[in-house]
Amino acid sequence: MSSTFGTLFRVTTFGESHGRAIGGIVDGCPARIPLGVEDIQPHLDRRRPGASPLATPRKETDAVTLLSGVERGLTLGTPIGFSIPNADTKPGDYAEMETVPRPSHADFAYAEKYGLRARSGGGRASARETAVRVAAGAIAEKMLSVYRPVQIVAWVESIGEIVARRPDLATLTRADVDATLVRCPDPEAAPRMAAAVESARTAGDSLGGVIACACRGVPPGWGEPVFDKLTAMLAQAMMSIPATRGFEIGEGFGATRMRGSRHNDPFMAKPGGGIRPATNRCGGIQGGISNGEILFFRVAFKPVSTIGLPQHTVAFDGTPVVFEAKGRHDACVLPRAIPIVEAMAALALADAFLQQQIQLVPRPAPSGT
Amino acid sequence: MSSTFGTLFRVTTFGESHGRAIGGIVDGCPARIPLGVEDIQPHLDRRRPGASPLATPRKETDAVTLLSGVERGLTLGTPIGFSIPNADTKPGDYAEMETVPRPSHADFAYAEKYGLRARSGGGRASARETAVRVAAGAIAEKMLSVYRPVQIVAWVESIGEIVARRPDLATLTRADVDATLVRCPDPEAAPRMAAAVESARTAGDSLGGVIACACRGVPPGWGEPVFDKLTAMLAQAMMSIPATRGFEIGEGFGATRMRGSRHNDPFMAKPGGGIRPATNRCGGIQGGISNGEILFFRVAFKPVSTIGLPQHTVAFDGTPVVFEAKGRHDACVLPRAIPIVEAMAALALADAFLQQQIQLVPRPAPSGT
Amino acid sequence: MSSTFGTLFRVTTFGESHGRAIGGIVDGCPARIPLGVEDIQPHLDRRRPGASPLATPRKETDAVTLLSGVERGLTLGTPIGFSIPNADTKPGDYAEMETVPRPSHADFAYAEKYGLRARSGGGRASARETAVRVAAGAIAEKMLSVYRPVQIVAWVESIGEIVARRPDLATLTRADVDATLVRCPDPEAAPRMAAAVESARTAGDSLGGVIACACRGVPPGWGEPVFDKLTAMLAQAMMSIPATRGFEIGEGFGATRMRGSRHNDPFMAKPGGGIRPATNRCGGIQGGISNGEILFFRVAFKPVSTIGLPQHTVAFDGTPVVFEAKGRHDACVLPRAIPIVEAMAALALADAFLQQQIQLVPRPAPSGT
Amino acid sequence: MSSTFGTLFRVTTFGESHGRAIGGIVDGCPARIPLGVEDIQPHLDRRRPGASPLATPRKETDAVTLLSGVERGLTLGTPIGFSIPNADTKPGDYAEMETVPRPSHADFAYAEKYGLRARSGGGRASARETAVRVAAGAIAEKMLSVYRPVQIVAWVESIGEIVARRPDLATLTRADVDATLVRCPDPEAAPRMAAAVESARTAGDSLGGVIACACRGVPPGWGEPVFDKLTAMLAQAMMSIPATRGFEIGEGFGATRMRGSRHNDPFMAKPGGGIRPATNRCGGIQGGISNGEILFFRVAFKPVSTIGLPQHTVAFDGTPVVFEAKGRHDACVLPRAIPIVEAMAALALADAFLQQQIQLVPRPAPSGT
Repeated sequence: MSSTFGTLFRVTTFGESHGRAIGGIVDGCPARIPLGVEDIQPHLDRRRPGASPLATPRKETDAVTLLSGVERGLTLGTPIGFSIPNADTKPGDYAEMETVPRPSHADFAYAEKYGLRARSGGGRASARETAVRVAAGAIAEKMLSVYRPVQIVAWVESIGEIVARRPDLATLTRADVDATLVRCPDPEAAPRMAAAVESARTAGDSLGGVIACACRGVPPGWGEPVFDKLTAMLAQAMMSIPATRGFEIGEGFGATRMRGSRHNDPFMAKPGGGIRPATNRCGGIQGGISNGEILFFRVAFKPVSTIGLPQHTVAFDGTPVVFEAKGRHDACVLPRAIPIVEAMAALALADAFLQQQIQLVPRPAPSGT
Repeated sequence: MSSTFGTLFRVTTFGESHGRAIGGIVDGCPARIPLGVEDIQPHLDRRRPGASPLATPRKETDAVTLLSGVERGLTLGTPIGFSIPNADTKPGDYAEMETVPRPSHADFAYAEKYGLRARSGGGRASARETAVRVAAGAIAEKMLSVYRPVQIVAWVESIGEIVARRPDLATLTRADVDATLVRCPDPEAAPRMAAAVESARTAGDSLGGVIACACRGVPPGWGEPVFDKLTAMLAQAMMSIPATRGFEIGEGFGATRMRGSRHNDPFMAKPGGGIRPATNRCGGIQGGISNGEILFFRVAFKPVSTIGLPQHTVAFDGTPVVFEAKGRHDACVLPRAIPIVEAMAALALADAFLQQQIQLVPRPAPSGT
Repeated sequence: MSSTFGTLFRVTTFGESHGRAIGGIVDGCPARIPLGVEDIQPHLDRRRPGASPLATPRKETDAVTLLSGVERGLTLGTPIGFSIPNADTKPGDYAEMETVPRPSHADFAYAEKYGLRARSGGGRASARETAVRVAAGAIAEKMLSVYRPVQIVAWVESIGEIVARRPDLATLTRADVDATLVRCPDPEAAPRMAAAVESARTAGDSLGGVIACACRGVPPGWGEPVFDKLTAMLAQAMMSIPATRGFEIGEGFGATRMRGSRHNDPFMAKPGGGIRPATNRCGGIQGGISNGEILFFRVAFKPVSTIGLPQHTVAFDGTPVVFEAKGRHDACVLPRAIPIVEAMAALALADAFLQQQIQLVPRPAPSGT
Repeated sequence: MSSTFGTLFRVTTFGESHGRAIGGIVDGCPARIPLGVEDIQPHLDRRRPGASPLATPRKETDAVTLLSGVERGLTLGTPIGFSIPNADTKPGDYAEMETVPRPSHADFAYAEKYGLRARSGGGRASARETAVRVAAGAIAEKMLSVYRPVQIVAWVESIGEIVARRPDLATLTRADVDATLVRCPDPEAAPRMAAAVESARTAGDSLGGVIACACRGVPPGWGEPVFDKLTAMLAQAMMSIPATRGFEIGEGFGATRMRGSRHNDPFMAKPGGGIRPATNRCGGIQGGISNGEILFFRVAFKPVSTIGLPQHTVAFDGTPVVFEAKGRHDACVLPRAIPIVEAMAALALADAFLQQQIQLVPRPAPSGT
């Protein structure tokens, strides 16, 4: 099931970076959810190449078309098919890939897996594939909004060595994040990050970084035990994004250096009744199941593999070559990856939400009452 | 599908820590694989509580019984059912859980999810569940061994602040790892780790740490594009283990601080023909697909939640209590988690192996040849 | 996924007829459903060999044990593991199978599929496997009963050439069905069926027949469009039972000889408001989705393959042999297959019920109201 | 998973009859399979409305576009996305459906399921959806042809009361079937069927019938035990086609009237070595697994629900109405359903083929040999 994500809210995607179109099918979205292109396109525009002076100059309008599953502004309960044309393909840029596997790209692994070399190298490994995730995630987010006030906000926490201060997770908005070109809400770090990206670009090099994400409004009970823990599904979701190298939740790797007495989250009484954790070092998930606190996780992105600097490598036939990328590329993908992280979080949460509804099915009153 | 892992090599598990038995069903193991209890029991013995002076004194023999799917020492191709009795349950130790959710345990989240409080708290969140993973992983490992010389070796890389030196990934063996009580192959760090665990235990506290894992012998081509990338499946597999807080592959979060020119893995010609990456900063997976190099990943484990020190928390009804764990527990789970990490890696690889075979189905020679 | 049935209410089974035990895991049953062995054992007793003078003399107590997922009489929401020991195995009866594939059994197909010959021939093709379905179906039925007054009643409609009159689908009970040895509620046909079975047994021969099934209390809306139509899931469920040869719903093959004007079900107003079909030639499902009427379908069972009469066949090595079955067997399986048909219907309906709940998740009132 | 079929060779579909397009994604097709539009379009043309004087006058070119997964005439191993535009929609024809549920259509059941009334009634229940199955089935058939000489031929066996003689299953071709307008290879029955359809059309009425199907070249071993028996998967596949009412394999319901001694298939030695069944009353599947003989099954189609004759029914609000269908419709769908039955058979077989390859993975020679 390489191209399908989710058990109940299921998205299946298709598309290489240089074919006619990319697209997907969202199956399992309940009926009577208000939905239109206007709910999806803004998310795609946030991810779109060419939207930022920091990003690749490739121009894609990324105009999504809804093909089915929606009528008069409401979902029908049937599969929502959608497509996004590949408008600005320049196969010439990629001709070299058929003879030379790009260092740290998927070209070599794909050729070994499938026994052929595609024009666009590891076609499904292209960042272009992520536009479909963003569209599907927008549908997931819209669906969730009908039932629960879930808010998902991701931001750039670090680029290279520059690390932003932690924002207030309870109040941070996407507008705060989008206020800077690098999508970092720390006004002190953001310009330094932008300068670092510009410097790397000028040098023909690239940078990685960390994206952090907070999800507010997730009630207790989402996530399934054992293999489909919410932690595990978020990890799969994030580590399926191209260029990701790590995932951590709550205190993450930092927790490994704490003692239990320091890391544990004791409980407290809530003013209006009921209890809740008094601290949130676990990042909102315990035993794989949400506990009502803010979900907080971080995703590591490696530096972009496509760089302008010459690289000493070999062709598929073993011939030494000096490879210099000519294609269009970003020096740092993190700002554009923000909506992708949010979309994958939305997909994981939409599925967890629907699965949990099984526990909440109303029962008739016992006879005699 | 909370209790099922895998698409082709599928394991489904059952069992609370204090019921009659735990167990599982492995479906999708090919026929004619040599298999017996002797292939599984040693793995369980490595995970077993009571095996180490550093571990919980709870005594479980963890004796696995094969119920089906094997005849005269060979798999039949049909589901392999197995069970492990829960021999040493002491429900009295856990009676308090019904009124007080243990800090940083799953008791609260489970109660919110399912609308009831089980005797053993978050029963499926118990570490006991992992015995079934170890048994299933042993079957996966045996199956893999028939077709490919895959070797999976995990070790304790850090406990608390004590970090071991990186071993030689190409030669490290399980015997090297098991040579010390803490399952750390660094002879300098291991005794310090053991002392740290003993110190934490004496203090009624607990420690976390990092487990690293190398997988040798994985050929290029394993893993599926997009959502089921091998990276993503390993991340799901690892983050589904109780107490995990983070996952990283290759250079992981460290990669975020490198430039592309530093992080990229160029290719080189192999002596006997063909090419391979000259370096392995990606940890053996590119574009989600194995590239023939050693897989290398790390998993963060938080400090054990169950500690002897008094904790100020509240009961389910909001009443303040001072909680002191009376149950049996480890001060540091990492040494016992080694076979769990290996088992989950084996399950992910077994499934990726079978899925990749679809690409390798022999075709008849074209007519005329 | 050969051994798993269902998307949300999922049962996974294991077990050969002559191994240590058979059993299964029900995953996806909501929490807080009252459940105990007493809800399951009576269903197994209805299927059990040795329960009827018409059935095989093999004695199995078929005593089910619940291994997990239930505590203090309530489901926990976690997987319900259960096992049934294989008490009365006599491998000697089956020794011949390793050299001679029984005519019309699965021995040959299994040997070709798996590349080995198991002691019990096509072990998973044995009718013994169906005991696990009955146990899982009993859990499904119990779960359904908590939410909806669904009643599933199957009966023997024909044995060989003897066809019973159609009972009143609205009132027929399991007690009516169990009132005769052959489980046929037609008092005129039942004794003739019993005599026919006895006559076939005496002759060393066997009989087939048709089981009909009615499901009352299924509200409109169950079943999914396209591939998972309720019709399709019932067809898969029934045609997965050993010895089945056909499935039809409503007027079935008879509908092919009607004109549309005769077969169509027009609608009528219901006394209390709303509308419903005025006739039910469709058998309660339209477009794959239940319409609130009684589900009605029929399942064809071939005559039992194991017969005492000598059969001229060949061994695996091609040597001609005269095969005479020595094992224990029924001359007609239909009476014992009644609870199996009901169980598979319950599993299909339980899954359809849970899936439909997604459409019924309550939404908060729009703001301002 | 209402819109997905298959475990390894998976098709997911989308599209209402009156939206912008219908289409699907085939995931799991191996790489390097020759594939182009020319492999798919002829199958669609066989199903297309307007192709026959016996069929609906709705004109759809049903021109399929491949959006991804194919490059330079070869599959890439990645998902094959495709779409078919809905060119000739006339929503006006269907306006009445919003107030009146058509008798024996899915309009009522869909409205109850989803809580809204779509313009096209039960949109996914429309026969238009089947075009996507035909396209996906064409891909499945092309894939199979690369590995195994499988031939799938369906034909009209009966229309209303007119039943054709059984053709020679070993030699029947699609050309034989397409030689008559009604797609019945019996030259005596075919013109009588055509006359019956014309007569029903003139009367404003409709006819049903039976489609039979033979699959040649399926080797022993396809199909999985228990729930995914090949019989069960074919049953699900066929009963998921709109308007189907029954499915039977081999002797089907007729087997219920035979004794075991008459129905059993003994084995015989094959001239070149090995054995095979001497007769094929089981229809090529034993214990749910193919046995190397010709698969033979039959599918019952009810008469078309849309008829011109006035029908006395009620509106959604209970008001009595006389309903006369104005939309475009066939008086008998069977000739057009032939490629649909073949496509679903191809999808089921493609998946069974891929699943069986797991048993055939080559193993290295044991060391020392």
